[in-house]
Amino acid sequence: MELFAVPNLPEVRPGDDVGALLRDRADLRNDDVVCVASTVVSKAEGRSVDLASFPAGPRARELADTLAEHAAGDPDPRFVQAVLEESVEVLMETPFLLTETRFGHVGVNAGIDRSNVPEGDVLLLPERPGDSAARIRESLPADRVVVTDTCGRPFRHGQRGVAIGWDGLQPSRDWRGETDRDGRELGVTVENVVDELAAAANLVAGEGDGGTPAVVVRGFEWGDHAGSDEHFREIGTDYVRQAIRGWSYA
Amino acid sequence: MELFAVPNLPEVRPGDDVGALLRDRADLRNDDVVCVASTVVSKAEGRSVDLASFPAGPRARELADTLAEHAAGDPDPRFVQAVLEESVEVLMETPFLLTETRFGHVGVNAGIDRSNVPEGDVLLLPERPGDSAARIRESLPADRVVVTDTCGRPFRHGQRGVAIGWDGLQPSRDWRGETDRDGRELGVTVENVVDELAAAANLVAGEGDGGTPAVVVRGFEWGDHAGSDEHFREIGTDYVRQAIRGWSYA
Repeated sequence: MELFAVPNLPEVRPGDDVGALLRDRADLRNDDVVCVASTVVSKAEGRSVDLASFPAGPRARELADTLAEHAAGDPDPRFVQAVLEESVEVLMETPFLLTETRFGHVGVNAGIDRSNVPEGDVLLLPERPGDSAARIRESLPADRVVVTDTCGRPFRHGQRGVAIGWDGLQPSRDWRGETDRDGRELGVTVENVVDELAAAANLVAGEGDGGTPAVVVRGFEWGDHAGSDEHFREIGTDYVRQAIRGWSYA
Repeated sequence: MELFAVPNLPEVRPGDDVGALLRDRADLRNDDVVCVASTVVSKAEGRSVDLASFPAGPRARELADTLAEHAAGDPDPRFVQAVLEESVEVLMETPFLLTETRFGHVGVNAGIDRSNVPEGDVLLLPERPGDSAARIRESLPADRVVVTDTCGRPFRHGQRGVAIGWDGLQPSRDWRGETDRDGRELGVTVENVVDELAAAANLVAGEGDGGTPAVVVRGFEWGDHAGSDEHFREIGTDYVRQAIRGWSYA
């Protein structure tokens, strides 16, 4: 398996055809997996938005006050309003806003970025990253596309690449019922492949839209395994999320 | 960047020199990163242990009863005893045992495996995976070694590769103070490289010790970034862990 960054991508503007930009800069094969950073996808989809378009309502002002008490800095209530509008549930209010986005991703500040865009703007995640991946794939000879983001996680330091959208492959490989050398059933049952692809891509992409926000994974073989469509957990099997609900930072 | 599995590894036995087994089967370079599955490392270190050596104490029997009420199956109190002996804290008692291991890793059942070993045995994680990585590295021409495991996580389905030990590199790249194209400071600050390497390796390794538990990552470039030694979170910055403490599954 081989990974390489797509070179010389220009600054992406609203309306740009991301697939076409990639196609023109990399000699792609059918079985490549193309991993594209959400920053680029969002910019092409016009998701860089002036903070002024998020006038803060009472809930946003209240959350901003709570954040100001507990967190460093002075959060802009309009930024909090943007987070609320992108989210279906606030899981943690302090010391940072952890929410579930409309498409099911759990992340700090609904994944909204304030770097990578002009002062006063925020960069929202793509509205439906799965649809974004499908659109990009239409312009590509490659059959598999993953839209990536980076985010932190409990228990472990640092950020790593994750998948927020995909097309042309299932998110997970299902090893249930498969056995090891000695015929014993495997302990690990479902492997989240798209998250692993996103993590691998992040090793060569670097960060901050510095010219390599797209990475080609060549030679990834799915193998003879069933697929699974599971990616974002439902609350029923997400015991940690259940534990977080209602918790408050003292 | 290129990844390939080390072929034809034999079944590893207690006392085996894992580094030597790898060296003999792959033409390694100095700047390779060698990712080795913890199963192999544990077997070489004699960590496959008969369940009978964990006679269950009162706490283990109590936890096993609670698990039997809430979870599927009938947990063996000796297995629970093994989990307790490998852990410094139980974070969640039901519907599964989520603990922090003695070396700081948070995982279900302290990462103890019941596949990959003979019936009646359990495979414990390496005692100090960082030391294991250092020992393996001594026998290798490669300068960087990562000991990997797979585990699940909140919010997202499926398991993915993670690093539990490393030697010859720092776990994270620190992008603090670096700026994007337009001179704005980057939003993402610390990238957990060893976890991303482990995830990438898992894409080509497969699971279950099926012959490819070691993967070489060739051409990974650290770049001109500061390093960080942070890997497992301390409780002070692990708000999700704080929220979990004391929560109980109804």
